[in-house]
Amino acid sequence: MKKVLCIAAVLCSAIYVKAQHVVAASTIDKKVDALIAKMTLDEKIGQMTQLTLDEVLQTSGGAAIHPLQIDTVKLKEALLKYHVGSILNVSGGANTREVWYGLISKIQEFAAKDRLKIPVIYGIDAMHGQNYTVGATFFPQEIGMAATFNPELARREGEITAYETRASYIPWNFSPVLDLGKNALWPHIYETFGEDPYLVKTMGAAVIKGYQGDDIGNKYKVASCLKHYLGYSFPLDGKDRTPAWIPDRYIREYFLPSFAEAVKSGAKSVMINSSEINGIPVHASKYLLTDVLRGELKFTGIAVTDWQDIKYLHDRHHIAATQKEAVMIAINAGIDMSMVPYDYSFCQYLKELVNEGKVPMTRINESVKRILRVKYELGIFEHPVGNPDDYPKFGSAEFEAVSLKAATESITLLKNTNNILPLKKDAKVLVTGPAANTMRSLDGGWSYTWQGDFSDKFAADKNTVLKAIIQKIGKENVDYQPGTTFADAVDIDATIAAAKKADVIVLCLGEPSYAENPGNINDLSLPAIQTQLATELAKTGKPIVLIMGEGRPRIITEAEGKSAATIMAYLSGNEGGNALADILFGDANPSGRLPFTYPRYPNALVNYYRKNIENGNSDDAMGYNPLYEFGYGLSYTTFAYSNLHISKPALSDGETLTISVDVKNTGSRAGKESVLLYISELYASVTPDTKRLRGFDKIELQPNESRTVTFKITPTDISFINDLSKRVTEAGEFKIQIGNQTQSFNYLTSIVPSRTGKL
Amino acid sequence: MKKVLCIAAVLCSAIYVKAQHVVAASTIDKKVDALIAKMTLDEKIGQMTQLTLDEVLQTSGGAAIHPLQIDTVKLKEALLKYHVGSILNVSGGANTREVWYGLISKIQEFAAKDRLKIPVIYGIDAMHGQNYTVGATFFPQEIGMAATFNPELARREGEITAYETRASYIPWNFSPVLDLGKNALWPHIYETFGEDPYLVKTMGAAVIKGYQGDDIGNKYKVASCLKHYLGYSFPLDGKDRTPAWIPDRYIREYFLPSFAEAVKSGAKSVMINSSEINGIPVHASKYLLTDVLRGELKFTGIAVTDWQDIKYLHDRHHIAATQKEAVMIAINAGIDMSMVPYDYSFCQYLKELVNEGKVPMTRINESVKRILRVKYELGIFEHPVGNPDDYPKFGSAEFEAVSLKAATESITLLKNTNNILPLKKDAKVLVTGPAANTMRSLDGGWSYTWQGDFSDKFAADKNTVLKAIIQKIGKENVDYQPGTTFADAVDIDATIAAAKKADVIVLCLGEPSYAENPGNINDLSLPAIQTQLATELAKTGKPIVLIMGEGRPRIITEAEGKSAATIMAYLSGNEGGNALADILFGDANPSGRLPFTYPRYPNALVNYYRKNIENGNSDDAMGYNPLYEFGYGLSYTTFAYSNLHISKPALSDGETLTISVDVKNTGSRAGKESVLLYISELYASVTPDTKRLRGFDKIELQPNESRTVTFKITPTDISFINDLSKRVTEAGEFKIQIGNQTQSFNYLTSIVPSRTGKL
Repeated sequence: MKKVLCIAAVLCSAIYVKAQHVVAASTIDKKVDALIAKMTLDEKIGQMTQLTLDEVLQTSGGAAIHPLQIDTVKLKEALLKYHVGSILNVSGGANTREVWYGLISKIQEFAAKDRLKIPVIYGIDAMHGQNYTVGATFFPQEIGMAATFNPELARREGEITAYETRASYIPWNFSPVLDLGKNALWPHIYETFGEDPYLVKTMGAAVIKGYQGDDIGNKYKVASCLKHYLGYSFPLDGKDRTPAWIPDRYIREYFLPSFAEAVKSGAKSVMINSSEINGIPVHASKYLLTDVLRGELKFTGIAVTDWQDIKYLHDRHHIAATQKEAVMIAINAGIDMSMVPYDYSFCQYLKELVNEGKVPMTRINESVKRILRVKYELGIFEHPVGNPDDYPKFGSAEFEAVSLKAATESITLLKNTNNILPLKKDAKVLVTGPAANTMRSLDGGWSYTWQGDFSDKFAADKNTVLKAIIQKIGKENVDYQPGTTFADAVDIDATIAAAKKADVIVLCLGEPSYAENPGNINDLSLPAIQTQLATELAKTGKPIVLIMGEGRPRIITEAEGKSAATIMAYLSGNEGGNALADILFGDANPSGRLPFTYPRYPNALVNYYRKNIENGNSDDAMGYNPLYEFGYGLSYTTFAYSNLHISKPALSDGETLTISVDVKNTGSRAGKESVLLYISELYASVTPDTKRLRGFDKIELQPNESRTVTFKITPTDISFINDLSKRVTEAGEFKIQIGNQTQSFNYLTSIVPSRTGKL
Repeated sequence: MKKVLCIAAVLCSAIYVKAQHVVAASTIDKKVDALIAKMTLDEKIGQMTQLTLDEVLQTSGGAAIHPLQIDTVKLKEALLKYHVGSILNVSGGANTREVWYGLISKIQEFAAKDRLKIPVIYGIDAMHGQNYTVGATFFPQEIGMAATFNPELARREGEITAYETRASYIPWNFSPVLDLGKNALWPHIYETFGEDPYLVKTMGAAVIKGYQGDDIGNKYKVASCLKHYLGYSFPLDGKDRTPAWIPDRYIREYFLPSFAEAVKSGAKSVMINSSEINGIPVHASKYLLTDVLRGELKFTGIAVTDWQDIKYLHDRHHIAATQKEAVMIAINAGIDMSMVPYDYSFCQYLKELVNEGKVPMTRINESVKRILRVKYELGIFEHPVGNPDDYPKFGSAEFEAVSLKAATESITLLKNTNNILPLKKDAKVLVTGPAANTMRSLDGGWSYTWQGDFSDKFAADKNTVLKAIIQKIGKENVDYQPGTTFADAVDIDATIAAAKKADVIVLCLGEPSYAENPGNINDLSLPAIQTQLATELAKTGKPIVLIMGEGRPRIITEAEGKSAATIMAYLSGNEGGNALADILFGDANPSGRLPFTYPRYPNALVNYYRKNIENGNSDDAMGYNPLYEFGYGLSYTTFAYSNLHISKPALSDGETLTISVDVKNTGSRAGKESVLLYISELYASVTPDTKRLRGFDKIELQPNESRTVTFKITPTDISFINDLSKRVTEAGEFKIQIGNQTQSFNYLTSIVPSRTGKL
């Protein structure tokens, strides 16, 4: 009886909470409507305008003076003349909390001087922690978070990031990136949760939960912003902001699900893809911005442009003959807020367009409502600036421990010949390579600065790989030679000489930090000098433990062929060095799994969810043959899978299939295992993917411990986008694969596949 | 008066010819209808069945015995039991005309024994000349023909190929390839007319004119077959027969025009793309095979599958759960003839499907009519086998001279530092590199054998580059060292030693021969050993003339950086060695132009008709920056452009714009110049290409000679595929570029661009 009562209480409470939300939403809608009724067109357009911080700062010789100071003349023009509704970004690099307090306070103070006293919504790219505040907790970049296959860690990261962003007096985070990391060349790969739609969707929803909680009015929560709607991640040539060719069917099959799930999770805003799909810049696509985003996904939040992108409809995309036409196209397509970010021409043009009847007032009101609603929900009308004393955990040891856990669970062991790892703590170690002693290859871009190029200064108190190893085993056991920079030799001879004296070489290769188009590359191969360093070191006969610190899978086939052990570190954040030292010397057991395919060759960039015709023939050396497959990763212990069981041999509409498998730790130390459920449809009316991830669960097992892992699959979980761009599940046989276990089941339905053969 | 009369006479004659065609067509239709009325279902299905020659040959130990002999038991089964309507291919390698005569005679003899005496239509891949007959004239591969920018040469090549194919008793040629050579990795690149839609369309129509003339019943003409309808050439990963992602808009913008033009030119058959677009195998696409090909293009000829492709709908594409379902899908989508090619299961399944009502008899009759109509048009009912004495020009000096002209006009001079070329005939020359002394790097695949791997045997009497140079300047002036194979060192030290004794190094790098998927590569870079050979040779300080013999633009940036002169030879056929020697020593003046973009880096494969956002920013080293651009090519003389003139500043509907430019030979020797007309639309509702080729004309000028070159442009010529997949010309400004001359004009129309932003 008591149990039933408890459940009833929980249910009632849930209903009550929901009712509260409805009331709150309704109250907010009334406030929004009342406010809009009072607004002039200028004031409305101001709400739709977002400036970069530099535009309201005091400058000297064109550059902002430090510490940053608001220029009140400029600020008055922005807030009192143009009624600007939003400001974003940093100037130069990370600020202290105190500087942020000063800036935001001044901005909100002036906003309150405007007729309607509407607070500014300040936005920031807090991509892996609040990376623009000095002393904040830096997590692995999203690609590392994906490698943990641990959504709870992603949620916790979101929670801490939200806390520290609000601690910086900022309520709006331009995160998470929900783009599918599908093209290995793309410089944003590290900002994504990898190449798999299910993984991206699942980790994305978790981090949004962490950012937003149940109520973004909470002083520890922020509004999230989904990036970059839609199809940003698959430029044909791999360069940032260059054209993608994606048919509608695949937009829906691969790229849309993460955004759809995030909208369901209550995400409050979305940032738009700066590029074009099939010749249509997304900022001009009424289809994507209105028909799909609003009509199908039922998204009610703010659609904000990316940097200067309305102007680029004219300047770069050439679909608008004038800047004014660009504004008309974007706003009519469905843009709510323009990241201008430098001038007020947007306001001028939009006002003219409304007055000329070329942009309807309904379109303006719709956008302004969305913006004001989020401002009310964030509570910034009541508390435009947070209380500095409310954030005692900012940069705390508690948060740092979560970052260390995330880094540790992300790092992926790809090779461990003869169990050379973990190393003994009395081994003589040569640490070398360009990524060995810099925070830039741990933090990556979006770290203190846009390009992450000052991480060694800002994070000087954090451990590089070298420093962490010294701390772990003592400086008497560690020698260090840089060997090369990322692109040039330093002193290879000295490095070889040092290697000859060592028991083992820890070789740290990879990439320097970068973000967006400065990270473009024309060749996925690791720069030749790094490969040469590996080759020369291998000639000493000393075993090489290769650590890759990189944002995307640079081709390492030759260098990696020389290693005894290979560790993929991604960009694991400020605790990455410590996590690597823990793993190298056995104080932690690696459990990361690759969230992307690691390609073997620069022109063989096929994802794991390839089509069957990409598998190649038996006589064809050019078939699917990556260096390491998606989902791959080793442990210091071993796991055995058995008893893959399905609850029934056939699944019908409305039913759920229960899949279970036993996993046992058959090694001698505790370890975590990501149990991955793959399902393949054998035949379908659109060529089926060879396999698709349809579930995962990360468990921890002591030696000899067993656990049964269970998955539930409904027909929707195995659906796909058909011939006519509709989501369907077709009758047929499906193959399940978990570890080395396989099973088959049939799905029964009367749906007959279409065969129009439409493109 | 006389002039008017003449024109009238021409018009009447044209009308008469047209009337004759109508009568002929009508007569043939009646014959076809009468024949079909007599046919059983088995006989009809037989017409839709195509076997490979091996299936009717005598074998020993599983391989055909040589010289090839028909196995009459197998042939009876094929023709009298299954009523097979078509046979294709060779067995092993090229046959003599005599062997072809024996084979075809026997086949037609048995076909005549069948109840309805319907001749077999024999098909062959005569890709650059009748490359499967010993002694035939081999032309440059299509990529070389494209580099000539000379449609008249392409027409002449088609004419000679048709002659020599009919001289081999074969009336059906699986050529031309009209695929857009858009992905540099793709192993079929050399079979294409390059990356530009206008060039492919124009050269394709010219070669079809050569193949078919006005009447394919002519004993010197063949039916052409357009390959590979549609979108075959743009696999995402660059591998043959792997998935393409192409939106409908771009199918129509880039890939369809060459096929549409070819259908207008009267092409008699089309072969289908073996791969899939957007998850839809083209063999299963009713949209492409019926709605577009028949409905829009009004194509009335035969649609034949590629090799075994109906089976592959099950085996590789996995869109059919059974082989029988695969047959149903393909035939209902619009396939007329199945290149089976090994068994009769197709006949069995199709019969069952018709009897079960799953494939309508109307669909069968439609296909059989198309097939029979072409057979009647080819005249093979009356003359199933040609007369051996009718082809005295087969392999003649006259034809060889055309091949030499084509090779000479194709070869493209990319660099000529300090006019090092032409070389003096008394220079001491080291000829080296893996492509220097093999016909394989001149002929490529589809030469005597599928892979072209026996060209050195079959074309032993032809000149390799080395032999042609020796013939030109005498063996006393020539040293030869192979240096490397295509992938491995031979003797680099000996090569360096020889280089030190020479005045100049002619370094022949490139690719061995390949065709289709054996030509797949995982790295576009030239194999490292070839680059190393160039680097080592450069250290001698002797000037290097680099000749590239290759089917696609392998990355040569490092090697090419060491050269004094660079010549792109493509695969220039059996006269390629002679043409190169003529050019090297000044007996010919090069006039080829690149029909594709030569990329600088392996992961920067953007075509010249890029979008504006691909041009990069001024601060972006990763923008469009190929090694050599499409259309590039030097001469030993110089040409000056002036007086670019347009007939009016604005173009309206129904009008024609006349564009003229003066071109003058300002150098000291005669030369040919391809005058290329580029037009850019500045702004459009779909992002416009940076520029597009809209016309070209190749002229020959003596020193100091001038000529005015004229182009006519209608609004349709500057149209594009819009937002809703419709072809439109939008109002706006257009920029014309010819040589270094530019002009602008406006197009005036009341059409308002759509802005749905549909993908």
